[in-house]
Amino acid sequence: MLDLEDYIRIIPDFPKPGVVFKDITPLLADKEASGQCLQELLNLVNGQKIDKVVGIESRGFFFGMLLAQNLNAGFVPVRKPGKLPYTTLLEPYQLEYGMDALEIHEDAISKGEKVLIHDDVLATGGTAKAVCNLVEKLGGEIVQCNFIMELSFLDGRDKLKRYDAFSVLQY
Amino acid sequence: MLDLEDYIRIIPDFPKPGVVFKDITPLLADKEASGQCLQELLNLVNGQKIDKVVGIESRGFFFGMLLAQNLNAGFVPVRKPGKLPYTTLLEPYQLEYGMDALEIHEDAISKGEKVLIHDDVLATGGTAKAVCNLVEKLGGEIVQCNFIMELSFLDGRDKLKRYDAFSVLQY
Repeated sequence: MLDLEDYIRIIPDFPKPGVVFKDITPLLADKEASGQCLQELLNLVNGQKIDKVVGIESRGFFFGMLLAQNLNAGFVPVRKPGKLPYTTLLEPYQLEYGMDALEIHEDAISKGEKVLIHDDVLATGGTAKAVCNLVEKLGGEIVQCNFIMELSFLDGRDKLKRYDAFSVLQY
Repeated sequence: MLDLEDYIRIIPDFPKPGVVFKDITPLLADKEASGQCLQELLNLVNGQKIDKVVGIESRGFFFGMLLAQNLNAGFVPVRKPGKLPYTTLLEPYQLEYGMDALEIHEDAISKGEKVLIHDDVLATGGTAKAVCNLVEKLGGEIVQCNFIMELSFLDGRDKLKRYDAFSVLQY
């Protein structure tokens, strides 16, 4: 077993001064490390039935599509406003300073479908919670939110209390 | 065998009037269709050895990572300027009106590595050619460029003459 933390590169002051960014590109570039990360994400799902994997733009797309194929599920991208071409639902959410929003195609999830939400990082939880709201507005049932990394000191888990939330790496 | 064209949704006037957008989200949402698309992309590679799959932001990320795992290769994202956190090479390229640019991490590819470049659509070829330039500046050897769709009327293939370029669907 590899220590996947060895494949996360620490970048100080990115994208702005004071932020310590965790770069997953060394993990993506290494086939054994990314294979193990995929397997650990699949282990978190623990055999539960999943109809759709929702991946959050854009680093959630990397493992989102891999999870979908390996879980025999469809894949649904959630994107920044204006990127999805068909009719969408939009969910605004709070940032540290100001607001942002995410969109999902209105036909992406059918009522009662079992949904796994995936992103690379759980930080403040605002993004993941907005995606949970979008999925539930479409009638989807959230089975789990999973992440490669969790920045525990940002307490993102508090916003996801109603859901099962797991991550491969904790900081 | 499914007809994958049935899973491409035609959206008139997106992202701007006069453009007919081909939406791959129905393909992503269907596990059989996306599984078949992956297999057809793998068939295009035809068993050639690949060290790194380069996926172009952001719709090239969907199948890029799947291709990498299935080819036992690493994955490298090429992104819009300012998105990659480590030291990058930047390649400007011409758009129909104006300029754009793409970046790659300078340590993403080692000299002599065999590279597959993947994106969802081959249109004018400007984006794919810029990525070929980045890969070659890092010393990578381009084995193939492959795409889900090719918009043949835009002659993108002319810009990729020096390379093997293939697509699953032709329009």
